[in-house]
Amino acid sequence: MKIVFTFRPPRALQAQLSEAFPENEFNYFKSVEEADKLSEAEIVVTFGEDLTEKHIENCPKLKWIMVASAGMEKMPFETIKEKDILVTNARGIHKIPMAEFTIGYMLNHVKRFPELLDFQKEETWNKRLLIGELADKRLLVLGTGAIGTEIARLAKAFRMETVGVNRNGHKNDHFDEINKMDELLMVLPDADFIVSILPSTEETRFLLKEEHFQVMKETAVFINIGRGDLLEESILIDALNSNEIAHAYLDVFLEEPLPAEHPLWSQERLTITPHISSVTSEYLPRAMKIFAHNLQVYKENGSDYENKVDLDKGY
Amino acid sequence: MKIVFTFRPPRALQAQLSEAFPENEFNYFKSVEEADKLSEAEIVVTFGEDLTEKHIENCPKLKWIMVASAGMEKMPFETIKEKDILVTNARGIHKIPMAEFTIGYMLNHVKRFPELLDFQKEETWNKRLLIGELADKRLLVLGTGAIGTEIARLAKAFRMETVGVNRNGHKNDHFDEINKMDELLMVLPDADFIVSILPSTEETRFLLKEEHFQVMKETAVFINIGRGDLLEESILIDALNSNEIAHAYLDVFLEEPLPAEHPLWSQERLTITPHISSVTSEYLPRAMKIFAHNLQVYKENGSDYENKVDLDKGY
Repeated sequence: MKIVFTFRPPRALQAQLSEAFPENEFNYFKSVEEADKLSEAEIVVTFGEDLTEKHIENCPKLKWIMVASAGMEKMPFETIKEKDILVTNARGIHKIPMAEFTIGYMLNHVKRFPELLDFQKEETWNKRLLIGELADKRLLVLGTGAIGTEIARLAKAFRMETVGVNRNGHKNDHFDEINKMDELLMVLPDADFIVSILPSTEETRFLLKEEHFQVMKETAVFINIGRGDLLEESILIDALNSNEIAHAYLDVFLEEPLPAEHPLWSQERLTITPHISSVTSEYLPRAMKIFAHNLQVYKENGSDYENKVDLDKGY
Repeated sequence: MKIVFTFRPPRALQAQLSEAFPENEFNYFKSVEEADKLSEAEIVVTFGEDLTEKHIENCPKLKWIMVASAGMEKMPFETIKEKDILVTNARGIHKIPMAEFTIGYMLNHVKRFPELLDFQKEETWNKRLLIGELADKRLLVLGTGAIGTEIARLAKAFRMETVGVNRNGHKNDHFDEINKMDELLMVLPDADFIVSILPSTEETRFLLKEEHFQVMKETAVFINIGRGDLLEESILIDALNSNEIAHAYLDVFLEEPLPAEHPLWSQERLTITPHISSVTSEYLPRAMKIFAHNLQVYKENGSDYENKVDLDKGY
């Protein structure tokens, strides 16, 4: 049984796998292009952005694809379905880092840490900088799945009000209030923080328009850690330049990496991070824990897979 | 009945007091030196750092001092006791801002926000910066009162392990484990974050020595939001220079304001803030809410004062 990785985990993780499964051989490659044993693989472990229809066609023994991420927009699902290949992924491991990242920037904003750092660089003791709080502020989360709920859970610990928006308005834990997506314009005016973790679907693509930013508070903070095609970036630039909102934090973009000399880079009151909200030092260890669990299940011909992907739904 | 403030609250707060107590006159002054009606005052509202023994002696009608803060090291308690003057303060209103501030810097550290900001300034998309998490990290809190407990409560929400240290090792909510102060050297080696909110007392003054930093993890983060005399600052500078710890966040100092050209200003891996962890835009509104409650009690000759200070204990 050939197990082929299209990436190289750190040695410590490789050692853990060898120790847990001494009878198996794990073949690690830097990329799918360099994976010369791919065609013999029964199991492929990938980040999910490299496998094409052609790869799948050329792997006659392939039975299981473990995707060590959650975003699978680029997976050739039709071919995978035809060949009845099992797909599992690492969904659920993003919620902790992404929620920490979001709350981190919310605190960074109200506590004015970048300005405090500038005063330190100038060696200036300035007690007059007015610091804010998260307590009693209103957080609006677009998308109330695992990640949005984890953000709301932490926000409640910070004594915030939490409002969620999802497709049907179905209730979720840790949200004081949930609204339907078509009520978005009604709930935006009261929000102090607007966080989107929406995936890219037909319904969410370019969902946010000028009118949405126009009804936000002037002090509002917009955070997008979902997908870059939630809005035309020019709309956000205009909203910031006309002081419709106070600050935006973007971790995702229409084109990634964000191209050199893109106007967003130098936009005032905008913080740019390189699509890293979900990736931390704990990411791969967690993904490999799911893989190890599922490998045990696979070897025992079991059915108790963690994070089995429904090939019809694509998640 | 003269009510004299030795500071000027914002107009909105003044208006709220006048509305709640239309029959009373509130006299606001910029400072105790400018408060020319001080000698006629029955009630004085102060931040607690300006009243001297002489002021108290010169106020024959003084019955009540409301201190709109919690630190009262500079209050002339002996004279106040002799004259049997009621003292109330604003303790308890610090815990929310100080806990938010602490968690904010912990996130700022693990998420490497200042470095991400530098990459943005260079217009560089760098996904290789390894981001950390708070989850599963170990937080050690020196001082397990209201503020320390609030920090631990939030840390538990972030799935951290929380260890507290206090004088007698008495248990407190939100701490997985509590140790006595004389066990400090034993618990320091396992801590990822060490936060001190200790007040300045005979027992805490210069409590932290070289040996304490020597046993900390190289990756440890030290945060002091209590009092500056917890340690000789040269000890911390040495610990940072010899890589005994990764970073320190200081909000309090032996001398405040931190003097110009003090070596701490330009110390690497040290973040300096001007004793502002407790002061936010919500601070005075909360303090004035306590004052308004107590003024009602006072006028009704009641006894249900909020935050009455025990003059023997000084808190």
